[in-house]
Amino acid sequence: MADTDPTTTNPQFYRILWENDDVRVLEYRDQPGEQTTPHRHPNTVMVTLTGFDRRLTSGVESRDVTLPPGIAVWLPAQSHSGENIGSTPTHTILVELKESAVSDLPAPLGPVVENRE
Amino acid sequence: MADTDPTTTNPQFYRILWENDDVRVLEYRDQPGEQTTPHRHPNTVMVTLTGFDRRLTSGVESRDVTLPPGIAVWLPAQSHSGENIGSTPTHTILVELKESAVSDLPAPLGPVVENRE
Repeated sequence: MADTDPTTTNPQFYRILWENDDVRVLEYRDQPGEQTTPHRHPNTVMVTLTGFDRRLTSGVESRDVTLPPGIAVWLPAQSHSGENIGSTPTHTILVELKESAVSDLPAPLGPVVENRE
Repeated sequence: MADTDPTTTNPQFYRILWENDDVRVLEYRDQPGEQTTPHRHPNTVMVTLTGFDRRLTSGVESRDVTLPPGIAVWLPAQSHSGENIGSTPTHTILVELKESAVSDLPAPLGPVVENRE
């Protein structure tokens, strides 16, 4: 099976900031029009440092999301690819949870925005 | 024992954004000169949305830290109080880990800055 770790599939966008027994922390940056290849995320909390518009594709469905800067969203474990469909760079921090149980139910595509005040 | 949850001890600064089985996500905001009362954090990843200068005090020792915006730091489980000793507001997101084992060893006071590129 191909490696689907985004730091391997798309090292131009994802880099490891640090990790310990509990978490691996990634930084993601891209420019408008850039897109990732298919990759897999574990359960993750993503914090947006910029606002951006993104199209996420699972291979079966796609979903467009617009996120403001400075929010935290839940990204349930999933495989997808993404495209910056807006006019602003994307900059986010991803906190991957190593000890988190992955649900047997299908995860929604993309982030679950629990609070966007 | 008194409640040392920072959302209870200092609700003017801390608020719960959302939580699930794995994490509780808080937002922290303050202004220069403001300070918290003693409170306890579980193992936490903190993402800075602003840069700030902060004095942390455990009751036994104190430590001053200067953090830039847009970094992720590890805050090992600890009790402390904090003071904004700079000239800029503080705005951070705290990802509290519910399933993380707390070390028996004394934690360093304040954040562990693993990467500050």
